[in-house]
Formats: sequence, C-alpha cells, structure tokens
Amino acid sequence: MYRSYVRPEILAMGGYVPGEQPKGNEAVKLNTNENPYRASEKVYDAIRQVAVQGLSRYPNAVAQPFREAAAELFGITPDMILCGNGSDDLLTILTRTFVGSGELLRLPYPSYILYKSLAEIQGAESEEVRFNADWSLPDYFGQKPVAETACHLRPVKTDRLKLVYLPNPNSPSGTLIPPERIAQIAQSLPCPLVVDEAYADFAGTHCVSLLETIPNLIITRTMSKSYALAGLRFGFLMAHPELVEQLVKVKDSYNCDAIAIAAATAAIKDQDWLCENKAKILATRTRLRDRMRELGFLVPDSFANFTWNVYRDESVSPRQLYLHLKEHGYLVRYMSYAGWGDGLRISVGTDEQIDNCLNLIERFLGR
Amino acid sequence: MYRSYVRPEILAMGGYVPGEQPKGNEAVKLNTNENPYRASEKVYDAIRQVAVQGLSRYPNAVAQPFREAAAELFGITPDMILCGNGSDDLLTILTRTFVGSGELLRLPYPSYILYKSLAEIQGAESEEVRFNADWSLPDYFGQKPVAETACHLRPVKTDRLKLVYLPNPNSPSGTLIPPERIAQIAQSLPCPLVVDEAYADFAGTHCVSLLETIPNLIITRTMSKSYALAGLRFGFLMAHPELVEQLVKVKDSYNCDAIAIAAATAAIKDQDWLCENKAKILATRTRLRDRMRELGFLVPDSFANFTWNVYRDESVSPRQLYLHLKEHGYLVRYMSYAGWGDGLRISVGTDEQIDNCLNLIERFLGR
Repeated sequence: MYRSYVRPEILAMGGYVPGEQPKGNEAVKLNTNENPYRASEKVYDAIRQVAVQGLSRYPNAVAQPFREAAAELFGITPDMILCGNGSDDLLTILTRTFVGSGELLRLPYPSYILYKSLAEIQGAESEEVRFNADWSLPDYFGQKPVAETACHLRPVKTDRLKLVYLPNPNSPSGTLIPPERIAQIAQSLPCPLVVDEAYADFAGTHCVSLLETIPNLIITRTMSKSYALAGLRFGFLMAHPELVEQLVKVKDSYNCDAIAIAAATAAIKDQDWLCENKAKILATRTRLRDRMRELGFLVPDSFANFTWNVYRDESVSPRQLYLHLKEHGYLVRYMSYAGWGDGLRISVGTDEQIDNCLNLIERFLGR
Repeated sequence: MYRSYVRPEILAMGGYVPGEQPKGNEAVKLNTNENPYRASEKVYDAIRQVAVQGLSRYPNAVAQPFREAAAELFGITPDMILCGNGSDDLLTILTRTFVGSGELLRLPYPSYILYKSLAEIQGAESEEVRFNADWSLPDYFGQKPVAETACHLRPVKTDRLKLVYLPNPNSPSGTLIPPERIAQIAQSLPCPLVVDEAYADFAGTHCVSLLETIPNLIITRTMSKSYALAGLRFGFLMAHPELVEQLVKVKDSYNCDAIAIAAATAAIKDQDWLCENKAKILATRTRLRDRMRELGFLVPDSFANFTWNVYRDESVSPRQLYLHLKEHGYLVRYMSYAGWGDGLRISVGTDEQIDNCLNLIERFLGR
C-alpha cells in the first residue's frame, strides 16, 4: 500500500546508483574520480574559522562570497553564477526549471546516467544520442528532434526538446569536444545546452568565454574533483543573469551551508594549489595511459582525471579484471553499457597507487 | 528570449523569499527563528576532526552514522530515517516523489509558504485550508477534496490529492495540534500526511510514536532550530522503510556533506545540551509572551521558539512597529497574510535581546 502513494514515474525508476563506497579505509579507491591529494590547507583554515564563528545563523542564501571570487577568476559578473550543494544539485535545478512532464531531454551515450534519472523524476522523456566510435558527436546531437509520427490524437511536435546535457570532458571516455564544436551545437539547438565541465580543470580548455555570445549556453562545475573536495558538496554554474534569476526560484532557499561556502571560496582563491595539483594528476595520467596501452588496452586520450580502458580483443574480460583488482583492495569502476560494450574507468590516483594497480593488472594478464 | 526556455510554471512563480539576512553582524536577528546560543562544543569538535581527516572522498550517501544515532534516540530503525540538506531538501524530495503535474497538494493557512512554492514548481495545484480563529483545524483538512464540477472534457476527480503538509507546531502561530488529532487526520486522508516538526523540540510532545501504526504518516525534523545549526543545513525525516526506499531515488546521490553528517551526529547524541538549551529558550519564551500580553497584544501560547503577536485593536500597526524595531537594530518578522491579517513573529533570543526588544516596543507604544 505504501507504493500506491508514490508517483508511477518514481516507482518505475531504478534510481541512480553511485560508485561503491567501501566502509573501511582499506581499499584504494580509483572508482569515483576523487582527487587522491588533500585540498589546500587554506580550505581547512577557513573551515576552522567558521567553527569558531559558529553555525547558529542561516548561511548567505546565494553564497555571495564564492560568487564574487569565481566571477573574478573567470572574468564574468557574480550574477552569472549560481552555487549548489554539489553540481548534482545544479543538474537537478536545471532539469526542474526547463523540462516539464512529457517533454524531452537529450544526452549523449555513453555518458553520465544521472541526466536520464533526472528526466524520469520529471516525468519527462530522454533521448540518448550515441557518440561516434571515435567519441565525436554525430550532427544529430545539435539539431531539433525528428518530427514524431503524425497521429490524429497527438499533433506532430518537434518542440518538445527542452534541455540538452553534454559532459565535457565526457565520462567514462575522458574525451573532449572542442569549444568551437560546442558553440556550433549550442547555436543549432532550440533550448539550453548544459555543458557539464566537472572535469574541465584537467582539460586545458573550457567554454566559459562562449557565454558572452551564446545565450543558451550553461556551464556547470564542481569542487569535488579538481579541488579535492568531494566530501564538501559544492558546485556552481555559469549562465546569463536572466537564466540565473529563474533558476534561483527553483533552488532550496539555503542550499549551500556556511562551511561549504567558506571552504569553496578559499579553494577557488588558491589557484596555485590547483595548478600544482593538476600538474601531478596529469603526469600520473600520462603514465597510466601509456602503460595500459603497452599492456594491450585501447585508451582514448584523456582530458579528465581518469582513463577509459577497453582491451583490444575479447581475450580479457573487464569484469573479471575488475573483480581481480577488487579482491586485492583496488576499486576501479566497471562500466557496462547496453549495445556499446564494457570497460574499466580508472581514476588517476597517486603514482604509488597507480603503479600498484598496474602491477596487479599485469599479474592478471600473466605478464 | 531567455525566458522562453523556462517552464511556464516557473516563470509565473514569485519564488519563496526567506527572512532578511542583514549583511553585517550589527542587527539582532529575531526574524528567522535561529537559536541565539552556540551549538554543543561536541559539534565543533566533530567538525575539526573531519577537517583533519580531509574531504577528498565522497561522504556516506545516506548519512548512516546519523541515521543510527537518531534511530536509537527515537526507538525506531535506521531504515525509517532519510537525511537531507536541511529539511527544505526533504520537503522538496517529498513533493517530487508524491505530487505530479496537475495533481493537488494541501496545506493549512497561514503557515509555511514554501509548501505552495514546491507545488508550483511541480506544475501541481495547492489548496490552502484556513485554520479556525483559535488555530485549530477544520474537519475538512483531514478529508478528501470535494468532487470537482463534472465536465464532459475532464472527468470528476477526487483522487488528485497526493500530499498534505501540516507544520506542527505551526508557524507563524507557534500553536500545536495534539497528536491524537493528527492521528485522526492522517487516518482519514487518501495520501501521505507530512507533519513538519521543525519546532517539535520546543513543544513537549511529538508524533513519532504514531509512525508504528499509521502508514501514511511522515515526520520531518531540522537541526536548524533546536540544535542551533541553521548554518549547517541538516534535516531528517522519519517514515515507513518502504516509503524511505522510494524517496532515496529522488534525492541527490550525496545530499549531505561529510562535515554536516559528523556535526549533526554529534549534535543529536548530546541530548544534555538540547535539554539545557530548551530550558533557557522556554523560560525566555514565557517572559516574552507574558510581557507582550501585558502590553496589549494577543499572543497564542507558543510551542515553538517564537511567538505570534497581533495587537488587540487597530490602533497599532504591526508594520510600523516592525520598522521601528528595525531602525533600532532589532529585526523581527513582519507577516501579512491576505484575507487573514498581519502581525509580528518574534524569535526567542537571549533574555537580554528580548528585554531590549520589549523596551523598544514599550517606547513605540508610548508606555
């Protein structure tokens, strides 16, 4: 009888399942793209300071100190920034703002499955557009949907497309669509294009400068990966102020807590830390990619803090390899995409973690 | 053109406006029911400990340590608890889980306006049922809606009612509906009844024991008020495990951060602090109520950490009094409810704050 209270769309959902989080601290986690290093000490100083000031008051409702710091960094205005309780909060707000029941959301495939779950919760449909084999996007991705079959009860509708998600760099592939191509896609679409730049700090390029000229472009960012703050839950988006104004109505009144605001502000102000951290991650990423290729894996060039690994032939089962690594205390992400295939997504850990993981892989392959 | 991307329901919304948060620290805030005291030092110890451990990993997805501590306190099982980024996050999750586009949500009036905003975001309707003059609820509140007018295009539907919200104690009145009456209301409704117990720790009674026998009852709580942690954003709900299971699908994967989980867990384990804090607040509340009554205000007995104050006749303008207090650095909440009237909601501060505020009110009244 409990189920009878629940909207049928929710009952039908499987729900998004995040990567495994082992209970103890024994396992080496290379499965959810966390940063293996500790965030800037300035972040922790800021947290201790809030603890001294106390938490009995509500936080700033729009995380204004962070908006100002981020606006300065990106050369935009603070009213172009909306902060969220992790970028998942922002993806939720975006979907609720733009996509109504029965409408349509588009995402590439394979990518972040959460976009699809968000459509389901809205009672909306989603359309997965497959990447080409080289992880470029087909022309269709940037176009209106094909007209639906005419029916005397339901008119032909090509204007149901209300939102398009594009993670860039993409997960699980780590590949990048160049900003010029993104501009072209956004300009062809009849609705907002959300470029999810969760991993952009590892990419060397991003789309922020396009915001000035492309009105339907929205960029989301997270502090979880490049700033080593997955435990903090803080993300932000950048868009035209008129869009931000509408999105604010949909967010919870106080969606970012006082500690997260102070910590994220300290983090984004410490660009020296980011630079240094990025250099370490990128060096280890290259080492991981090169060795995996030597071992016979097909590894696309990664622009993120992970690599996507598929063996060159069917002699190696990614699932068996995943289980082998797990048994030895190394968690990587086994991904299986219907109609596409499976593989392993390995987060870039420390050099030592990656070397140990590579040794386990070699042993599994019998090298 | 930006507006054309946005769902019409969102465009039409005014958006919920939270209480004023002055920029400096000069004003005495008696307007958003924050606790005037500092949270337990055990909370701040827990925060400092997380800062030592670091934040590079994702938090526990369901805040399990908190669930276990709260379950022990309330004598229920951990799977009956869902944690949120403030109780607003939970109200959002509840509305999205139960109320679809075109469906109906019920709330009492005057109460927490947010419930109505949440219905609007869902593209749902809301039905405000007025409290009686003595802040009791009319019978209708616990019944199915009246059948809609028949129409050949739209069938009569009385089953559109999908969720009922009842804050208890209520805001702005501070009044309480007894648990026996709540049980009766829940049992008559065809949908879940959410009892928002944000202020229950100040009330001396609550509805948790009803959960065992009433399947459609859901109780929400917040750490913002009685635990003095408005800046932390942490709330939780209690319901049957089968309902919690569905709600989990709708929440963001990691909706509570690692610091909030540790801090809220430390807070709920320190019941001695809660007891002591409650005693102080209740003593000041009585003093505030008694003096306001002496001054000619009608003040219902409050079961929360604020009082609701309406002058006995029209010789005193609540709005003018609010402005007078604001001018002197005391922020209280001026509330004006269409078709009901206006008044001042005054949060219970420290004795000193309340005495100063009362002196300002006396001066305004010319006593």
